Amino acid sequence: MIDFTYYSPTEIIFGKDCHMQAGERLRAMGAQKILLHYGGASIKRSGLYDQITAGLRAAGVDFAELGGVQPNPRLGLVKEGIALCRKEGVDLVLAVGGGSVIDSAKAIALGTPFSGDVWDIFLGKAQPTGRLPVVTVLTIPAAGSESSPSAVITNEEGWLKRGLTHPLNRPVLSFLNPALCRTLPESQIRYGASDIMAHLMERYFTNTDHVDLSDRLLEGALRTMLIKLPAILKDKEDVDTWAEIMWTGMVAHNGILGMGREEDWASHGIEHELSALYDIAHGAGLSIVFPAWMKYVYKANVGRFVQFAVRVFDVSLPFADPEAIALEGIARLEAFYRSVGLPTRLADVGIDGARIPEMAEKAAFRGGWLGHFVSLTAADIAEIYRLAL
Amino acid sequence: MIDFTYYSPTEIIFGKDCHMQAGERLRAMGAQKILLHYGGASIKRSGLYDQITAGLRAAGVDFAELGGVQPNPRLGLVKEGIALCRKEGVDLVLAVGGGSVIDSAKAIALGTPFSGDVWDIFLGKAQPTGRLPVVTVLTIPAAGSESSPSAVITNEEGWLKRGLTHPLNRPVLSFLNPALCRTLPESQIRYGASDIMAHLMERYFTNTDHVDLSDRLLEGALRTMLIKLPAILKDKEDVDTWAEIMWTGMVAHNGILGMGREEDWASHGIEHELSALYDIAHGAGLSIVFPAWMKYVYKANVGRFVQFAVRVFDVSLPFADPEAIALEGIARLEAFYRSVGLPTRLADVGIDGARIPEMAEKAAFRGGWLGHFVSLTAADIAEIYRLAL
Repeated sequence: MIDFTYYSPTEIIFGKDCHMQAGERLRAMGAQKILLHYGGASIKRSGLYDQITAGLRAAGVDFAELGGVQPNPRLGLVKEGIALCRKEGVDLVLAVGGGSVIDSAKAIALGTPFSGDVWDIFLGKAQPTGRLPVVTVLTIPAAGSESSPSAVITNEEGWLKRGLTHPLNRPVLSFLNPALCRTLPESQIRYGASDIMAHLMERYFTNTDHVDLSDRLLEGALRTMLIKLPAILKDKEDVDTWAEIMWTGMVAHNGILGMGREEDWASHGIEHELSALYDIAHGAGLSIVFPAWMKYVYKANVGRFVQFAVRVFDVSLPFADPEAIALEGIARLEAFYRSVGLPTRLADVGIDGARIPEMAEKAAFRGGWLGHFVSLTAADIAEIYRLAL
Repeated sequence: MIDFTYYSPTEIIFGKDCHMQAGERLRAMGAQKILLHYGGASIKRSGLYDQITAGLRAAGVDFAELGGVQPNPRLGLVKEGIALCRKEGVDLVLAVGGGSVIDSAKAIALGTPFSGDVWDIFLGKAQPTGRLPVVTVLTIPAAGSESSPSAVITNEEGWLKRGLTHPLNRPVLSFLNPALCRTLPESQIRYGASDIMAHLMERYFTNTDHVDLSDRLLEGALRTMLIKLPAILKDKEDVDTWAEIMWTGMVAHNGILGMGREEDWASHGIEHELSALYDIAHGAGLSIVFPAWMKYVYKANVGRFVQFAVRVFDVSLPFADPEAIALEGIARLEAFYRSVGLPTRLADVGIDGARIPEMAEKAAFRGGWLGHFVSLTAADIAEIYRLAL
């Protein structure tokens, strides 16, 4: 294990109708005027918007509002939100939605008290100087942004997608009501689950030794997803299964499962270029990139891929041939993705190889390399895109 | 799953020499005068006392000190600590030691701003009104008190042992340096590991449905202990193994593995009477009580005991006879305890049955029953003590 600091102070209120307390809880926290931030029409159609605004009014919490967050949330709307928060004297941002809405809220919350350009913080050129507190009502189990210190924003100028991990990004409070997930379209269910699995696997593939505990915790969470995703696609009304998926999404990404390990995160970086350029869903990009990444890197630490195959997918083949076990594990992951309707090839989402060199250069941009399990150059990344064609 | 609130805001700084930062961190938190609270001679012998006090002096943090915490920490010393904190105007309690020292520090921290008798809080007769912040430097992986909201104190008048679980009991900051564990005596290693395993099993044995994720996380943590405890007994200098045990102890008891489940805690209650009356180590009492409790209750939910046997102990027997699988799981737990030198019978620690009725009455005292997996009356508890003879 390597040295670490673990600090995950987000309060999670989980269960039936918990979001109905949002107004009174914000009032108790001393909020005077908040920004209600959300995406499109879905929370209005489902009645969630009316429940939240009624709760705010009943608690006497004044609010401004800004909807319109898109998947792969845009810098333009973040800047609009910052201007609105400043103009209205907002003291807290309430995000109602999935990871895109929450990430957009985090960027607004960092940008409001910041005197410079908020994009400089995402580029690593400037440090945040403070933030408005962020509270979330989660509607999509996926990004883990409800407790994570991460946010990912896309700059429309040049379609540059950048993630920022910073302690100030952690929400102070999140409401997780599994029943809210029942209205999600099937595609979002799949893509969300793919994102949760990717968060587990980015942590799992490490060269750090003496991480038996977190290995087993990650394996257990992955096995849970292998059972719960097909179950929820069979019955979207099953709140018990939603509860497990929603909680797995939080546990997968609040940090505890990755402590003491070097994490990889190459697949996320490789995916980000795909979704930035082609505007595909992040979870779709991940189910395409991850198997390709695995095929490219597994020889660097076959033992870890054997453990993944045996413990997560119950692969039972002669141990005399570890590579065969490793490859069978990767094949089973791909087969699982396909069985739940997730894409595993770029062709599945209509992307050809034309812009591979450009994406590979962008993905490797920040330090000339990407990933920790194997350090990938732009040339390596291009090969991984090609394996995914 | 059942509804819950998860809030575990303790900051954990983990790794090599991390406790050397204690002084400067306390200073940065604004501490002016602290209480340095510890046990006996061991932290002076090991040099830890000198390191901590040198750090405090270097950072300009003034301190009062109170040593002498015993295992099964006493109310008398807690009251002495409260009087000292009030007299010296202490604004933070720094616990350097294991669970007993930390629990004693928590009680002092709650009692100092409380106008009544602190024991009334532990009896549930009064609510805490505030606390001094508690910071810990952990030396024994066991109780999980470094991040938990729990503290257990023994009142010497009547040898009544009572636990208090309250959000104010969570330390604000804990330093976990695995290298500090190398000087622990073998008995404390065993007893600490037994306590960690018990914290996992108290959560594991539940009748709550739809808890697949936390089942798997608990199983993974238990399997880790089955490997790491024998390893550390073989080589006490192995800091990598200490790191895994120390982190497992935190993860086992910070709350995250029990969310959404009804937990049991009967075995802890039954054990507390043993250690209160006979002053045996808590971990020794737990390895005696847990198998007896299991034998008494397993028929109430054989499926759960089958899962425990199969997933934690790899029991492979015909599924046609679930009871045989369940009993084999319990037998393997007992065999494991014995293989690492833990007692599994009251006779192993020199206790006979003379005071069983008294202990059973005390254990059931608070509501006439104990435990959630099966609600135990005093008569049930007496039977469990007898099974452990």
